Amino acid sequence: MTETHVFSGGASGPWRIRAQEVLRGEPLPPAAFLSVAADASDDAAAWRLRGLTSNLRYTTRPERDALRAVQPALARPEAMRAALIPIRKTTAWWDLAQDERRALFEETSGHTRIGMEYLPAIARRLHHARDLGEPFDFLTWFEYAPEHEPAFDHMLARLRATAEWTYVDREIDIRLERATG
Amino acid sequence: MTETHVFSGGASGPWRIRAQEVLRGEPLPPAAFLSVAADASDDAAAWRLRGLTSNLRYTTRPERDALRAVQPALARPEAMRAALIPIRKTTAWWDLAQDERRALFEETSGHTRIGMEYLPAIARRLHHARDLGEPFDFLTWFEYAPEHEPAFDHMLARLRATAEWTYVDREIDIRLERATG
Repeated sequence: MTETHVFSGGASGPWRIRAQEVLRGEPLPPAAFLSVAADASDDAAAWRLRGLTSNLRYTTRPERDALRAVQPALARPEAMRAALIPIRKTTAWWDLAQDERRALFEETSGHTRIGMEYLPAIARRLHHARDLGEPFDFLTWFEYAPEHEPAFDHMLARLRATAEWTYVDREIDIRLERATG
Repeated sequence: MTETHVFSGGASGPWRIRAQEVLRGEPLPPAAFLSVAADASDDAAAWRLRGLTSNLRYTTRPERDALRAVQPALARPEAMRAALIPIRKTTAWWDLAQDERRALFEETSGHTRIGMEYLPAIARRLHHARDLGEPFDFLTWFEYAPEHEPAFDHMLARLRATAEWTYVDREIDIRLERATG
């Protein structure tokens, strides 16, 4: 059900930060490593982002069943790379009614439809942050094998070209690899 | 947008608690008065419930427009009575996909349709609490003139008879009146 995850950028952690690309809005302070924990215990972090897994907000039953049939688990041994992509949407987005947001999300932009094409290569976990008073609305965590990074980039390029993305006013793409010793 | 409200039951406050009726689940500790604030400053409270206003989760654009055309503001001088109704829904509810919850909420149960019939007599503000780790999922605040309490009771009875309410596993109905001196 709802489960909190805290992403901390700092001087140590199991993931090495390869790059921070700012797509829109303000950057995060620089950091070399990232850790993911259930609470914010690392006082020395350069930045800390908190989100929680929650119920689905747009996905229909057929879409959910299709996703569940193919989506991979996190922490696969071959998934040596990861990405954390925090995004914030505009006030105009949040002022829309549910049916308008759903239509933009899926019928117009094909968010789930596009994402499905990259399964099971890309594992994904969505965290909600807006209602926690955080600087971003969503934190999405992705894991994949190095050879799937071009496919991952392609997926992101398609999503960023959608109508839904015209409502994104802050987005940072943080690329990671496992820090193996 | 999102705005936090803390409801505290204690020995003082601008609202006198007339009754606490437990519909399902555990009661709250007894308290004589209730206050509503932007933060939890009253350390002496017998209980404290926190929620936040957020975006609409099920309402379509036509429904929202219809609601906005008739819904009254809070704090009308004649609204000497109020109710705070915290509810929690079951895991089964939260495990449903968005279209299944929407269908139960409106097409099957007529939540908005029923509520609309009692406007503009009953003012209402919904607070989300589930993603804050609170003991309830929703806190709904209602305000009305004393002569509209029978209509308010009637509305609640109809809602509680719906299919949506079979997913409610904790509900407390706290009735209040302004403590005027």
